[in-house]
Amino acid sequence: MPEDIIRQSEDFPGWYQSVVQKAELADYSGVKGCMVIRPYGYAIWENIQRDMDRRIKETGHENVYFPLLIPERYLHKEAEHVEGFAPECAVVTHGGGQKLEEPLIIRPTSETIINVTLAKWIQSYRDLPMLINQWANIVRWEMRPRLFLRTTEFLWQEGHTAHETKGEAEEETLKMLEVYRSFAEEMMAMPTVTGIKSEGEKFAGAVATYCFEPLMRDGRACQTGTSHFLGQNFAKAFGVQFQSREGALEYAWQTSWGVSSRLVGALIMTHGDDHGLILPPKLAPFQVVIVPIGKTAAQQETVAAEVGKIREELGADVRLKVDDRDQYTPGWKFNDWELRGVPLRMEVGPRDVEKKQVVLVRRDTGEKEFVSRDGLKRAVVDRLDDVQKALLARALEFREDNTHELEDYGKMKQLFEQTPGFVRAFWCGDAACEEKVKADTKATIRVIPFDQPASLGRCIACDKPGQFQVLFAKAY
Amino acid sequence: MPEDIIRQSEDFPGWYQSVVQKAELADYSGVKGCMVIRPYGYAIWENIQRDMDRRIKETGHENVYFPLLIPERYLHKEAEHVEGFAPECAVVTHGGGQKLEEPLIIRPTSETIINVTLAKWIQSYRDLPMLINQWANIVRWEMRPRLFLRTTEFLWQEGHTAHETKGEAEEETLKMLEVYRSFAEEMMAMPTVTGIKSEGEKFAGAVATYCFEPLMRDGRACQTGTSHFLGQNFAKAFGVQFQSREGALEYAWQTSWGVSSRLVGALIMTHGDDHGLILPPKLAPFQVVIVPIGKTAAQQETVAAEVGKIREELGADVRLKVDDRDQYTPGWKFNDWELRGVPLRMEVGPRDVEKKQVVLVRRDTGEKEFVSRDGLKRAVVDRLDDVQKALLARALEFREDNTHELEDYGKMKQLFEQTPGFVRAFWCGDAACEEKVKADTKATIRVIPFDQPASLGRCIACDKPGQFQVLFAKAY
Repeated sequence: MPEDIIRQSEDFPGWYQSVVQKAELADYSGVKGCMVIRPYGYAIWENIQRDMDRRIKETGHENVYFPLLIPERYLHKEAEHVEGFAPECAVVTHGGGQKLEEPLIIRPTSETIINVTLAKWIQSYRDLPMLINQWANIVRWEMRPRLFLRTTEFLWQEGHTAHETKGEAEEETLKMLEVYRSFAEEMMAMPTVTGIKSEGEKFAGAVATYCFEPLMRDGRACQTGTSHFLGQNFAKAFGVQFQSREGALEYAWQTSWGVSSRLVGALIMTHGDDHGLILPPKLAPFQVVIVPIGKTAAQQETVAAEVGKIREELGADVRLKVDDRDQYTPGWKFNDWELRGVPLRMEVGPRDVEKKQVVLVRRDTGEKEFVSRDGLKRAVVDRLDDVQKALLARALEFREDNTHELEDYGKMKQLFEQTPGFVRAFWCGDAACEEKVKADTKATIRVIPFDQPASLGRCIACDKPGQFQVLFAKAY
Repeated sequence: MPEDIIRQSEDFPGWYQSVVQKAELADYSGVKGCMVIRPYGYAIWENIQRDMDRRIKETGHENVYFPLLIPERYLHKEAEHVEGFAPECAVVTHGGGQKLEEPLIIRPTSETIINVTLAKWIQSYRDLPMLINQWANIVRWEMRPRLFLRTTEFLWQEGHTAHETKGEAEEETLKMLEVYRSFAEEMMAMPTVTGIKSEGEKFAGAVATYCFEPLMRDGRACQTGTSHFLGQNFAKAFGVQFQSREGALEYAWQTSWGVSSRLVGALIMTHGDDHGLILPPKLAPFQVVIVPIGKTAAQQETVAAEVGKIREELGADVRLKVDDRDQYTPGWKFNDWELRGVPLRMEVGPRDVEKKQVVLVRRDTGEKEFVSRDGLKRAVVDRLDDVQKALLARALEFREDNTHELEDYGKMKQLFEQTPGFVRAFWCGDAACEEKVKADTKATIRVIPFDQPASLGRCIACDKPGQFQVLFAKAY
């Protein structure tokens, strides 16, 4: 199978496309712009969901579910919001065999419909903070779909909170950004740069948008999630007011934050190579694949018995897959599971049974070792941990190698024509300069990092004094 | 709070409505026919989901995700299916600011869109059985919405499978029915009668529909889930063919099956009483609520320390809630948690701390007991188990008390005018008799039970020889 994959180094978008389809993560559907998430891809999403849901609950949030359909007029209550989202909406005009009096849009995000209800639920400071989250599907019309990265429908979680004070809402915004950042690092082995978006890149209706930006292996950034400080914009638009501790009627301070099935796309593009996917053990549907080897019926029987024992010993601690398909050769299976990115392959043959050992092969390095059957579980768990760490280290190194501090506009233009990456440069804060860079290079300001140098240089575009150091990149 | 609940015995629909809203399970939204599921209600749904998902996976199924939007023409490929569902559809006519060339419907169920893809995925008998499931939201236009029971949008899981032979597909249909039945009994403490639907009540497009019907406390049935044997109907409509072991090209044999957020409604109506909800421990968001009692600051401190210890001891095994809100009295809290149906209440006061004991109160019986702090965990776990069993026994008894074997049509009419329930009666199999009963009594054939008597009497409607004993009931 791997011979069918396009080489990553030669054609990155082609590689991505072929890997997603051949590893059976997802498929195009008969519906324009929409995808089918296949079992192997959905299992990755379930692993993401399970851990993210735990983190969201541990930070005090409760899950809820709000309607898919939103009356069009709700969208119009917040001026920036409607401007940002109306062009992407799918509109329901008929229901139950009749033309509707008012069109309904399919949620492109749920701030509006949630705030209509929060205005009812929130009366007093005692009802605050209100910390809710939902796992839902979202529709934003997409003309140039790409599996996991840009589809008309996608899956996500969206958190929505309301607070007594500005300070608490700002703290919440940053807390959830940190939840995302640490999830990306610990679970996805994906290092990110955190900070704030420029005015031009922020969420329609937010006061400020924070983000965590990873670098893909083709040198592009991929926006994987955002955390918004909404101020009182939506509270004022929807009348979300509460009696304060002092007895005054005040508008709530709000946040919203989300990550989506796009994370699966970022995961693929952070780690994959010419042979296919490389999945970090913590999110891999199967952490270990066992390939039994044996020619004669007697050998196969011996090996199957041994594999059964291993499954019993490891099954509770490790997500195992035994590939006992009889229509494929071991070699074919090795390639197949490499393509699917399983972190560890275990080969068990009759000689191994005899010698009380197994063969372990790491997907990330290709390293092969003989491991004694005694203490096999410990070895497997340790090796999975090694792979998880090595993937993060490798991704971090890749990012450092592909981050350039530039002061010269010509050099930046040249860079973005060749092998792109992150460019750290100074910016005067003027939207005109941001636009100029975009027009000249197709790169945008991905993030104004929290981590700023002690002294600031001059704006890379206009040479006026810089206000921030920013990260420019081409992006998905 | 409970003083505000309508009494179940006086006005069942009013009771249901008030309990769902006052226990904060769900709320109406600004969107006609759609509901908001609140944290407490969603936590019940998550508990249902978690266990059902495990059962679905243990029987070999994998989760996937198919698009929300379905081209209208797909629906038209299966004649009965479109007739059944087209009138309930929500139709998207505009997307991305433009009128669509072809309208898209929001999925009312996914047989059509899934089969378009299965036709691509399934080529050979080696690809079978194909056993997939998805958790998704569904839209079926609803003119008379009722929280959890009938809403335009609802949440569900839908399993879709394809098999080599008719026998395997039939076996799968019954296997999943049994998964549902045992879930209802073991988790929801809800006894059901299993069997097959009459032709008039089966799923649009199925060869046969199987169901498990529970009886609600007002004597009505509530269809909570179905398992369909689809034969080759959809396979033929969508061209789902495979190369058989013998080398012939054959149509796949299929099933589909689903349960929805309606289960939450059935749970409420199976166990609740005049004081509010009664939740079975296995699905309760909080299995135990601890109410600390103490007047002076010193007492409160002593009690809080003790409650902290108890939380530590029990927290890993029991879903605990400590109600330390300071604006409410213990009595108010008792009523509040009764309304919310928490299976066990634990009261801890300064005297209890002194005597090394706590007070446990069962929600189902109101029984109160002093339990020694030594072995408290064991006692709590045992008591929760007792409550779970008692709820099933009580529901079973209620059903037996409200199931009537009748042979006289006049008596049946009279019964359905007064206190309804399940009526077991014989039926000749003629749709005209089924219609007549419905017109005269509003009761329908809920299920033709698997469990049939040795000899059959005469049809209750026409007096011709009966073909089956059936279960008539009014239904949600």
